[in-house]
Amino acid sequence: MDLQERAAHNLEKVREQKPLVHNITNFVVMNYTANALLAAGASPVMAHAPDEVEEMVSFARALVLNIGTLTDDWVASMVSAGERASEQQTPTILDPVGSGATQLRTSAAKEIIEKTKPSVIRGNASEVLSLKDATSTTKGVDSIHSVADAEDAARTLAGELQTVLAITGPTDMVTDGNRVVRVGNGHPLMGSVTGTGCTATALIGAFLAVDSDPLRATATALAYFGLAGEVASENASAPGSFMIAMLDALYTISPDQLKSGSRFEEATG
Amino acid sequence: MDLQERAAHNLEKVREQKPLVHNITNFVVMNYTANALLAAGASPVMAHAPDEVEEMVSFARALVLNIGTLTDDWVASMVSAGERASEQQTPTILDPVGSGATQLRTSAAKEIIEKTKPSVIRGNASEVLSLKDATSTTKGVDSIHSVADAEDAARTLAGELQTVLAITGPTDMVTDGNRVVRVGNGHPLMGSVTGTGCTATALIGAFLAVDSDPLRATATALAYFGLAGEVASENASAPGSFMIAMLDALYTISPDQLKSGSRFEEATG
Amino acid sequence: MDLQERAAHNLEKVREQKPLVHNITNFVVMNYTANALLAAGASPVMAHAPDEVEEMVSFARALVLNIGTLTDDWVASMVSAGERASEQQTPTILDPVGSGATQLRTSAAKEIIEKTKPSVIRGNASEVLSLKDATSTTKGVDSIHSVADAEDAARTLAGELQTVLAITGPTDMVTDGNRVVRVGNGHPLMGSVTGTGCTATALIGAFLAVDSDPLRATATALAYFGLAGEVASENASAPGSFMIAMLDALYTISPDQLKSGSRFEEATG
Repeated sequence: MDLQERAAHNLEKVREQKPLVHNITNFVVMNYTANALLAAGASPVMAHAPDEVEEMVSFARALVLNIGTLTDDWVASMVSAGERASEQQTPTILDPVGSGATQLRTSAAKEIIEKTKPSVIRGNASEVLSLKDATSTTKGVDSIHSVADAEDAARTLAGELQTVLAITGPTDMVTDGNRVVRVGNGHPLMGSVTGTGCTATALIGAFLAVDSDPLRATATALAYFGLAGEVASENASAPGSFMIAMLDALYTISPDQLKSGSRFEEATG
Repeated sequence: MDLQERAAHNLEKVREQKPLVHNITNFVVMNYTANALLAAGASPVMAHAPDEVEEMVSFARALVLNIGTLTDDWVASMVSAGERASEQQTPTILDPVGSGATQLRTSAAKEIIEKTKPSVIRGNASEVLSLKDATSTTKGVDSIHSVADAEDAARTLAGELQTVLAITGPTDMVTDGNRVVRVGNGHPLMGSVTGTGCTATALIGAFLAVDSDPLRATATALAYFGLAGEVASENASAPGSFMIAMLDALYTISPDQLKSGSRFEEATG
Repeated sequence: MDLQERAAHNLEKVREQKPLVHNITNFVVMNYTANALLAAGASPVMAHAPDEVEEMVSFARALVLNIGTLTDDWVASMVSAGERASEQQTPTILDPVGSGATQLRTSAAKEIIEKTKPSVIRGNASEVLSLKDATSTTKGVDSIHSVADAEDAARTLAGELQTVLAITGPTDMVTDGNRVVRVGNGHPLMGSVTGTGCTATALIGAFLAVDSDPLRATATALAYFGLAGEVASENASAPGSFMIAMLDALYTISPDQLKSGSRFEEATG
């Protein structure tokens, strides 16, 4: 099964199995990501209380952690939930929103990574690269000037962290340190809607629930989300109607449509 | 006045009186339920600070409590607000989101019920039935296999709690322990939008503000909300555009349209 | 450059410079105001943790404070961020949501004003007038009966607080105590969407980032937002589709369209 067939297969499985995806995420995107997960066919739950996150994640098939509007108590809940998920081998994905922008965010992201061993980390280039010090403190804060640099650094970092890293942008790049997959789907208007990155992360969570290979789950989920942007752009040319059309597209895209519409480029490092 | 006439009458009164509805609800649905209340004609306020909820609820004509993203401090605010509401005979409705799923939610729901004596509790079948132990600890956790079982259990529980219970689903069931009303309005796409249950709860809050009979207020609000789903489905076939069309329908449905479009079935136990 | 030209100029600068606008705002509107800022061309960030707000605001070109779902810890973060903004001469705008309705809100608004010296305060008439006691405790709580009274009171208060006050309604009024500008743009459906006031506040934040005259920034942002409502009403007649069309209009309105469509009336007190 190639990646295009796998994308179709994963979407089909999400719709059949309706996996419970536990989200501890930020206030800005909670509604939109819950709706995106529902439109995709998954079953979202949002829960962050310290005295229930471990119990809640024990029922879930994937855990989504997102530090977009973090405070210390939320980070503590993310760590508790992530540790439990790790014990029971439930896949976790981390979205280190704003890591690198403030010390709190960078250190929270690193703490979550160290304690919960997420299967996947998704961010933009600067968020992902801000995590480098987690393992290679001797390198200091390298300045990254090009996408090529970012990709090399991400590949090294993925190997060190033993995780899958996804850097999303005009072209998305996914790597586990060895394999690299680029995903060509997407539309510029996605940058004019808040939380599209966070929504990509949540959808990867749903695909992680049905595909045991995190790199494959990540790449196929990003193709699905990017294709939803492309489909939405056929009916909407401004961000309000576009964000609604995105939810519609997540619901209406068929596995066959995803198979023929997804665009991958694979390489091995 | 039969229930169809009452539905029209209640909608008219909400639009005329614009009752202030105080919500202490979850982060996922705050925006959508506020917009739904505004579209219906009510005046929503969201406030959860422990040092203002009692003052805020003293101006309100209904209180909506929803534990969807609860933590201990929010539950404490819900209890304070609910106790004040109870003292001043302002109707309270509780949405025990996820009760039965985690111990925290079940115990929070029971604590709120015990201390605030809500006029109405609305949930899905498993949420409502998880509340049974509140009064009949000797029965243990009965397994409920059919809607008929759920209805019988709900009727018993409503009598014990001296409240109105609403179980929503393809057909909604509302009971005060004696009377039973079934509401046939609704559309399957409502299940693909996050927070439709919570929104039903908020709209019941608005109707409680204008109708002193909680069973009647609940049934008529559910018919109104279900009809909005039906009207929305005429213009939208996927969840993004559907959730927007629902808000439009809440705004455009006329009392006459509600009178002719609402579908009730009444029984006495 | 008259105000119409200035409005066009400010919009152009927001789109060119994409200023970072730091928001500490309420849960209900976070998603919508972030989307409105993005649609306008600005770059929103939401962050409220006490241990990062000072660092975050140090990168921002405007700070938006909104007490819509305040608690004590959020108010403390607002004060910290606002004090830092004040030190570095980053403009701050305060939205005193519900000031006058509860003691907590009135005292929080006054505390924030005293400690952070916002450049602009935007609210409805009763919110703005509830702030009067901040400086003139001897007057007690005057009853305000007419818009004319409100305007006189606002002008006096603006002078005392050395800030710009904006009272929004069917016609918006902006004053720095001396100059008064009225803005005639807007549409009645804006009152049926939650958080339109908060969104006006956020957009003023974006305009403050590119215009050093707070009165001018405020008036032109309000014209832009009001015009978006007018444009939206051409395609939408109910609040759900209207709120989406508003976001579209914020994105599609051109500087020329704003220049010809904005309606100002100036006076000097």
